[in-house]
Amino acid sequence: MKRSTFLKMTALAGTAFTVLPSSSVFGHPSGRLRIGFIGTGLRGQELLRLSLMRDDTEVTCICDIQEVMLNSALRLFEKAGKPSPKIYTGNDYAYREMLEKEDIDAVIIATPWEWHYPMAMDAMDAGKHVGCEVMMGTTVDEHWNIVHKTRETGLQYMMLENVCYRRDVMAVLQMVRQGLFGELIHLQGGYQHDLREVKFNNGQQPYGGGVEFGEKGFSEARWRTQHSVTRNGDLYPTHGIGPLSKMLNIHAGNRFTSLVSMASKARGLHEYIVEHGGADHPNAKVEFKLGDVVTTMIRTAGGETVLLQHDTSLPRPYSLGFRVQGTKGLWMDLNESLHIEGLTKPHRWEEAKAWLEKFDHPLWQRYGNDAKGAGHGGMDFFVIHAFLEAIKRGEPTPISVYDSAAWSVITPLSEWSVANNSNSIEFPDFTQGGWKTGKQIFANSDDY
Amino acid sequence: MKRSTFLKMTALAGTAFTVLPSSSVFGHPSGRLRIGFIGTGLRGQELLRLSLMRDDTEVTCICDIQEVMLNSALRLFEKAGKPSPKIYTGNDYAYREMLEKEDIDAVIIATPWEWHYPMAMDAMDAGKHVGCEVMMGTTVDEHWNIVHKTRETGLQYMMLENVCYRRDVMAVLQMVRQGLFGELIHLQGGYQHDLREVKFNNGQQPYGGGVEFGEKGFSEARWRTQHSVTRNGDLYPTHGIGPLSKMLNIHAGNRFTSLVSMASKARGLHEYIVEHGGADHPNAKVEFKLGDVVTTMIRTAGGETVLLQHDTSLPRPYSLGFRVQGTKGLWMDLNESLHIEGLTKPHRWEEAKAWLEKFDHPLWQRYGNDAKGAGHGGMDFFVIHAFLEAIKRGEPTPISVYDSAAWSVITPLSEWSVANNSNSIEFPDFTQGGWKTGKQIFANSDDY
Repeated sequence: MKRSTFLKMTALAGTAFTVLPSSSVFGHPSGRLRIGFIGTGLRGQELLRLSLMRDDTEVTCICDIQEVMLNSALRLFEKAGKPSPKIYTGNDYAYREMLEKEDIDAVIIATPWEWHYPMAMDAMDAGKHVGCEVMMGTTVDEHWNIVHKTRETGLQYMMLENVCYRRDVMAVLQMVRQGLFGELIHLQGGYQHDLREVKFNNGQQPYGGGVEFGEKGFSEARWRTQHSVTRNGDLYPTHGIGPLSKMLNIHAGNRFTSLVSMASKARGLHEYIVEHGGADHPNAKVEFKLGDVVTTMIRTAGGETVLLQHDTSLPRPYSLGFRVQGTKGLWMDLNESLHIEGLTKPHRWEEAKAWLEKFDHPLWQRYGNDAKGAGHGGMDFFVIHAFLEAIKRGEPTPISVYDSAAWSVITPLSEWSVANNSNSIEFPDFTQGGWKTGKQIFANSDDY
Repeated sequence: MKRSTFLKMTALAGTAFTVLPSSSVFGHPSGRLRIGFIGTGLRGQELLRLSLMRDDTEVTCICDIQEVMLNSALRLFEKAGKPSPKIYTGNDYAYREMLEKEDIDAVIIATPWEWHYPMAMDAMDAGKHVGCEVMMGTTVDEHWNIVHKTRETGLQYMMLENVCYRRDVMAVLQMVRQGLFGELIHLQGGYQHDLREVKFNNGQQPYGGGVEFGEKGFSEARWRTQHSVTRNGDLYPTHGIGPLSKMLNIHAGNRFTSLVSMASKARGLHEYIVEHGGADHPNAKVEFKLGDVVTTMIRTAGGETVLLQHDTSLPRPYSLGFRVQGTKGLWMDLNESLHIEGLTKPHRWEEAKAWLEKFDHPLWQRYGNDAKGAGHGGMDFFVIHAFLEAIKRGEPTPISVYDSAAWSVITPLSEWSVANNSNSIEFPDFTQGGWKTGKQIFANSDDY
């Protein structure tokens, strides 16, 4: 079907931008969802482990180019008592063979950022739904292409943004929905995480022990660090914007309209290399383009403002820096406190703990035990659960392709603004107007 | 002296932008500084009370247009056992008569923001040094005019920015100067203060009790609230930017180069009126232009970034939101914690208290007892002390006219950016290049 025809049809159907998959897997002989994994590095292994725990899902094939990672992945199948998958490996494009040969409903992609786009496009061309680790693409055009591809194929693309499912964040979402903060006004989030021992290691261990990256690095240092060499902007916006987006009802009556970013100078990574590898280490000559702290401001059609911060190259405690503020009060995660007019003392903070427990999300109440031991404090369980449930049932994923695109495109927009003296850039409307009538389907129940 | 000649001379003298006053007061017969007060409202009364405590200063005249405020001021003279001052009153320009007739060295101005500019200009035209409450003027041009006036006259203008002297902030300044945070990268501050009971009252009490402002309001509500009606930007940036500016050595080798601002929608003030005055109150029809949360980013010549937030119309606990971050760690005031690589546990916050005590500034060690009971936790003592000491000695004020202008001009720049889709605006260089060779003279000792 031509894209234009498809758009017309969906518009006529009154579901201007919600692509409904054409069928669910309940018709399969096995009754189970069949999926493949592209990328079984450390991140892929955690998503794999959670998928293998499920009775409704069969992981029939996996693909990676590193033997050590494939072997670790295979051990997860053994441990889970699940049949060994078909393995695809040998070259960067082995995944294409897997997509061509395997009868699977969906793929989960957990590869370096720059591979997400071609792999997702290829997967959808092969008729597979896509659950992809965060960051959709590198350029604005790539984000549009993914969106168009879902509309052309009727397939779903969900970015596996796990922080949307963080327990405290979901409790705050409940409080937002019940109006405790009044009308939302200003929100903050970000990614403030000292990644220096992720960006550099000794080529054998994933974290630290050396100042190598790229070919000589291991795990994320093999690919992630290079982005700090060549790019300057908010390289990792989704952990902050994802949850805030759901509170703001983005694409359910609201959308992001414009963005500005400002970057500080770059010092942290160079200093780390000099300190831990010496001034004569070859990497001490590398010039890192990524500013140590990059701050981004986004405005919405609803008139709210969102502040995002990216801070991964300096010594600091981990903090996503959430702030959710409305006409009746605000919550901040840094001091784990909130203030709600009429319910807490005037002009005073109150510890958030009891409130977060009181407004614990039904999903966490139902699945909190299952999530125990899952990565990142349990939230990885929920994001995989949501993707697999939605695909299995043939229902829209709670994080849509439009959400995924809008969250991930912040990076290229931010790069543009930083490169253009922090001038303002318009936010693309991937829904092409559909945001006005879109319905909120994220975490509305204890289902998924 | 023509400005151009003056500029040439000061450049030749190697003090490219430090205007040295031509004489100190030590030559006066009394040996005491003689000053007058323009504005004896609640804020002026506190500055007056602190001035009257000093043996080196005579307050010989005061001016205000409200009898109730003049009477309160006179009681302060009685209480301090000081001779009653000459009083000027009766109309908005009574201060001009005072400037003309009185043999005073300096004036302290504590009037509504919009009066600061004409009063300071008139005072300098009358040959008086100026200590002025925060906010220098309304437009960029007004800021330039004040700067030019000081250069033409050789007189000093100091904005009385008290937060520069906050005890914890000064301790952090000491830590910055001793390199504990490494090279500075990113700083944050602002003015986050629920002013709804300041912006509205019943016309009799200064805080709350009604939803009146303007002619029907009392104290700050008489004039301050109107700025929220007609302006949208960071209306009150100096409490945040002042202290950060001193840490960044602005005008002592560094300067602000560009700025962007983004404003949220405006809801808080209208909702307050409806809730406390009813939907039928005439003020419920007022449309407030000021966004509830205004966020501003500033870049410096040194490559640091500064984030400022203005948030005065919503229910919230008071917080100036300081963050001081460098290559070795950071301090934040919200959680009263810091992290310093090698000195605190990796990836962990440590309570700041002991550090702030260890690095207590010499000024606080010497004058902490004198500051007890002074406004705003003692810091008002120091800002008045600094102004009067510098003028008395004929030395440059530690907050220069260039500092004052750069901090205060953030408001009109911010208004421009908000009105222009958050595009970036160049920061004026009030020092005309002098920032490159300027020396840091703020709080270098326990003197003033």
